[in-house]
Amino acid sequence: MTERAVDQLRALNLEPNWAPYAEGSCLISTGRTRVLCTASVEESLPPWRERSGKGWVTAEYAMLPRATHTRSGRERKGPKGRTQEIQRLIGRSLRSVVDLAALGARTITLDCDVLQADGGTRTASVTGAFVALELACRHLVAEGLLERSPVMEGVAAVSVGIVDGVARLDLDYALDSSAQVDMNVVATASGRLVEVQGTAEGDPFTRAEHDRLLDLALMGTERLIAAQAALLGGGA
Amino acid sequence: MTERAVDQLRALNLEPNWAPYAEGSCLISTGRTRVLCTASVEESLPPWRERSGKGWVTAEYAMLPRATHTRSGRERKGPKGRTQEIQRLIGRSLRSVVDLAALGARTITLDCDVLQADGGTRTASVTGAFVALELACRHLVAEGLLERSPVMEGVAAVSVGIVDGVARLDLDYALDSSAQVDMNVVATASGRLVEVQGTAEGDPFTRAEHDRLLDLALMGTERLIAAQAALLGGGA
Amino acid sequence: MTERAVDQLRALNLEPNWAPYAEGSCLISTGRTRVLCTASVEESLPPWRERSGKGWVTAEYAMLPRATHTRSGRERKGPKGRTQEIQRLIGRSLRSVVDLAALGARTITLDCDVLQADGGTRTASVTGAFVALELACRHLVAEGLLERSPVMEGVAAVSVGIVDGVARLDLDYALDSSAQVDMNVVATASGRLVEVQGTAEGDPFTRAEHDRLLDLALMGTERLIAAQAALLGGGA
Amino acid sequence: MTERAVDQLRALNLEPNWAPYAEGSCLISTGRTRVLCTASVEESLPPWRERSGKGWVTAEYAMLPRATHTRSGRERKGPKGRTQEIQRLIGRSLRSVVDLAALGARTITLDCDVLQADGGTRTASVTGAFVALELACRHLVAEGLLERSPVMEGVAAVSVGIVDGVARLDLDYALDSSAQVDMNVVATASGRLVEVQGTAEGDPFTRAEHDRLLDLALMGTERLIAAQAALLGGGA
Amino acid sequence: MTERAVDQLRALNLEPNWAPYAEGSCLISTGRTRVLCTASVEESLPPWRERSGKGWVTAEYAMLPRATHTRSGRERKGPKGRTQEIQRLIGRSLRSVVDLAALGARTITLDCDVLQADGGTRTASVTGAFVALELACRHLVAEGLLERSPVMEGVAAVSVGIVDGVARLDLDYALDSSAQVDMNVVATASGRLVEVQGTAEGDPFTRAEHDRLLDLALMGTERLIAAQAALLGGGA
Amino acid sequence: MTERAVDQLRALNLEPNWAPYAEGSCLISTGRTRVLCTASVEESLPPWRERSGKGWVTAEYAMLPRATHTRSGRERKGPKGRTQEIQRLIGRSLRSVVDLAALGARTITLDCDVLQADGGTRTASVTGAFVALELACRHLVAEGLLERSPVMEGVAAVSVGIVDGVARLDLDYALDSSAQVDMNVVATASGRLVEVQGTAEGDPFTRAEHDRLLDLALMGTERLIAAQAALLGGGA
Repeated sequence: MTERAVDQLRALNLEPNWAPYAEGSCLISTGRTRVLCTASVEESLPPWRERSGKGWVTAEYAMLPRATHTRSGRERKGPKGRTQEIQRLIGRSLRSVVDLAALGARTITLDCDVLQADGGTRTASVTGAFVALELACRHLVAEGLLERSPVMEGVAAVSVGIVDGVARLDLDYALDSSAQVDMNVVATASGRLVEVQGTAEGDPFTRAEHDRLLDLALMGTERLIAAQAALLGGGA
Repeated sequence: MTERAVDQLRALNLEPNWAPYAEGSCLISTGRTRVLCTASVEESLPPWRERSGKGWVTAEYAMLPRATHTRSGRERKGPKGRTQEIQRLIGRSLRSVVDLAALGARTITLDCDVLQADGGTRTASVTGAFVALELACRHLVAEGLLERSPVMEGVAAVSVGIVDGVARLDLDYALDSSAQVDMNVVATASGRLVEVQGTAEGDPFTRAEHDRLLDLALMGTERLIAAQAALLGGGA
Repeated sequence: MTERAVDQLRALNLEPNWAPYAEGSCLISTGRTRVLCTASVEESLPPWRERSGKGWVTAEYAMLPRATHTRSGRERKGPKGRTQEIQRLIGRSLRSVVDLAALGARTITLDCDVLQADGGTRTASVTGAFVALELACRHLVAEGLLERSPVMEGVAAVSVGIVDGVARLDLDYALDSSAQVDMNVVATASGRLVEVQGTAEGDPFTRAEHDRLLDLALMGTERLIAAQAALLGGGA
Repeated sequence: MTERAVDQLRALNLEPNWAPYAEGSCLISTGRTRVLCTASVEESLPPWRERSGKGWVTAEYAMLPRATHTRSGRERKGPKGRTQEIQRLIGRSLRSVVDLAALGARTITLDCDVLQADGGTRTASVTGAFVALELACRHLVAEGLLERSPVMEGVAAVSVGIVDGVARLDLDYALDSSAQVDMNVVATASGRLVEVQGTAEGDPFTRAEHDRLLDLALMGTERLIAAQAALLGGGA
Repeated sequence: MTERAVDQLRALNLEPNWAPYAEGSCLISTGRTRVLCTASVEESLPPWRERSGKGWVTAEYAMLPRATHTRSGRERKGPKGRTQEIQRLIGRSLRSVVDLAALGARTITLDCDVLQADGGTRTASVTGAFVALELACRHLVAEGLLERSPVMEGVAAVSVGIVDGVARLDLDYALDSSAQVDMNVVATASGRLVEVQGTAEGDPFTRAEHDRLLDLALMGTERLIAAQAALLGGGA
Repeated sequence: MTERAVDQLRALNLEPNWAPYAEGSCLISTGRTRVLCTASVEESLPPWRERSGKGWVTAEYAMLPRATHTRSGRERKGPKGRTQEIQRLIGRSLRSVVDLAALGARTITLDCDVLQADGGTRTASVTGAFVALELACRHLVAEGLLERSPVMEGVAAVSVGIVDGVARLDLDYALDSSAQVDMNVVATASGRLVEVQGTAEGDPFTRAEHDRLLDLALMGTERLIAAQAALLGGGA
């Protein structure tokens, strides 16, 4: 399983429109990680946003209790800090490629529910949620509610890290558990950065290591965005 | 869609082992309702149960936010009363067919997560959770942890109701919304009753109507148990 | 104490207007179970009900900490699932005999506070709350706020069960604790059913046992409704 | 109703053993205020108290929703600050007359549930809870668990205040609402003070006014303690 | 440290305008107790107050986790009962010297954050908050929002108690821990009382002891109010 | 105020031992931002850490309500996601320079309470908390509980960002509010990285911009670590 090359992505599968009631949806599988991403359109704005006249894109993230090797409890007493951090990351990432003024006075909520977790669930959520978002925007165009999609370019995310002293692309759970440094990168189709989150799990890391990880991550997001574009055709 | 005969079940599909990390699992589809049921085995008991020496079977139930036609919020401030009522119904139903002493000092948790909701999610949860439970028990036998399955017989559930004055089997969302009387019935392979929950949504109902509904429901659970048995073979 | 015949109710006492500030109230005693039921009228509706133009009847249920043999904690972190289930049962039962359109744009809240608990508190709550509700409606008529009572007929509830293989009416705590099957039935003066909730506590039960229990329960509710009518006179 | 003399208590009634399951209980009525006080004995201590070897006496306080002229909500999201303040006052007052070492390693919980509220519910709770406590201690003696009661002397509480410039004893709701100064006093059979809580609701008050209020209050508690002693006989 | 005379205050320091963003502020030190008091003006009223046309003054109180000798947890699940009791005391005390009608439709919130705790934090909060409040009102006058300050007179608070049988003024933590009786007194520049809260921690206390404590407390508040006036000049 | 050069830090002041009860403390001021950092030592470990035999370092972060230009509410219903994210950042940063095995079976909690907020509160918290931590470790050495400090090297943090197209060091609130890109960097005395968190607030940023920001940040942390070392002498 770990014979994958250090600069190779896991097997990727994007299944569009998996959830029939949602305006847009995508079941993303990357290796054994599976996330159901749905985009729900509401013709209203959160109260603090109402006066702006601009739209809003937000995200929620959760894991089914048995998405993991051992069962974990449901977050029924409010989302934990980690969950909120992931939700904000997904929301910010998607907003960075949407023209919110063009979206108009509506909210799109991206629900990312992890059905199976084998590392990289937050980055898979960003990559899959983009597909759901684009499909929901096309739905708005098809319904005549928008003239064209407010999505400006593609966006995707990947994790990289240093494992046993080697920089590696797209960490699964086993790799992530033994990584000394862990970095999540969100980038756009034009090669620009939306987020860089690098963390030393143990010893601090050098500037040179940081630069190598960022190179690797940008190679990965480029391939993921190509896969999104292949699925969605000219529209994204 | 509603040309289904009044005594006919919706299309049923039982997909075993859908969730690879769980000891047992089943994705049940009945019409457009889809519930992922997983069975998780833990080699411990809840504190209040420890002294008994007997095992425990319990259930949790939840809906993905976009399982429904319009998005509903996550239950992050504790499960609502309706959710707890459903959870207890599922737990009681499964326990009624398990020899808890034979299960030994372990807990099996059935998680029923509704991926798509078109009526009858609680009854589908019981029917699907039985398959997950039986598979988890077979896993325990295969692992040498139990000599034979503590499951004594099959169990399934169905809803019936009076719609426009007519008694009908297996209500989908549209039928359920216009039902005057709504009844959920849980029954076993030997034709015995575990639960009968009949409720007048508007006007009270007569004893004769009650009896007709119960007849119809038992016809339905008999067929569902036959489908479980066909899937599971002689083991159940 | 248990020399009562299997088809005999416990001693019943209905004390009207026990709580002087409430628009209607009744202290019901059935054996050693005592529940104070008050009906509070508010000239407003819950927000989700406002547009309907129809009235609303709802219920809350609680137990004093020392209503039981040993002290139990107050529900100060939100009502438990069991409490919510009972509250919904009481509310639904009372609404089934009220013409909500005739009630007009007002809410009647039935508070059922258990002062002493010896089994059957939820069914005593329904039976006592009906008296409080009827008295509150007569108060509205006396005040000139309504032309006549929107209460259409009487309603009462009783529990039945199978204890040591024998079907029994009106279970007290000792009987309830050893019952194999437990059934709560809510029925109206016209003999129609509002709720049937039968549950196997251990082994499932047969259809014949179910029918016998339902016969017994309807005998019980008929007598309880006669007692309500005797107290209230021609008005109910 | 307010023709009562300024130094006269409201009509008092103490009904012992109203709650049959509790080790001690008293239904106290003072005017139209009614509080059910129960004393529950547990043969254990709160964790922080365990090492002390001494007993503990604590209190809880609540109001039924329709104890008041208009319905108020249940405290199901934790007791409010006012409720906690009252609970601590009742607990401290009772502990001041109990020899906790003589009580031994057990806890007595006094539940004061207001069935009807017309002012002075916290002081009625102290006065009634003392009777419940004394009866529970006698029960412990009767059971052979204690050689003699650890209660050292009687304790009672009353409110006083300045209404329309006049110092008055035992304020009912109407008087309390228009009082400029409000004072609750807890005192013992030996005439000593346990609590003095004087508060200016509007303008501050002079030292002379304070002294007059305290005189009046001590006159009141003396009479209340005489009534307790008359009920309980030589034991208290 | 305890060579202080029994009728002597601890060293007092009032540092005005310590918090530059607040409309008024004061860092009060009394012995080793230090409380940062800020006054925040909002040009709005709480909803229940809106119709009155009068202003509102309220308070919040908290302790930094390491204000004490050993670290205590943050109150992140809602303020404890003790905290709420202190908050209400501070709010009432300040309101007693403010002409709320003259304040106009605005709210002043006094935040009292204990940076260091060595006993008497609630009374120091009242004394320091008065300075912050007065400075905020002068700010409103300077800004032309009010013609003159709505503060009518000074107010301060102090604790007294009986330690080893001796009545003492201004208890620090060591004295407070061994006090048999503890009394907090809030009084105004005109010598009138706003609050008297006397509590027996162990044995009840006599009327004579009560009177001696009150004398001592009024001596203390007189000196504290003189210090406030010296700092603030003729304005207060 | 913004005439500061683009690569210049704000005025820095580190006041050690500001909180006398804590084992170590530092009041850090950077421009108008002021954070009180205290280090509390407990001779125990969190339960999940107990078996490891290693020590633990953790952090809490909060703001006084009036630390900001307008008052904000207290987090009394649990810390917000942003607060938790900051707490974890501070904890991870400090742990990266501590030999937890050498610390032994004890916990050090860093409380970072923002007294005044003008941007950069989370990075000031890291820089100030390091001083508190080092002082607490020296205290453990002085007490004979440790042979030498388990702190391996200094650590500090700073924010950088792109404002009006220009990369700038150490953003105050005004700069931060108009930044297009915002990056927080935590680095050690040896010039290695602990955290890099870069976020596009609006448009994504290029790789070249990212590299320029990281250069600037490392220049800043180098100076901050020099200031820590000057204060602490040879020990850090």
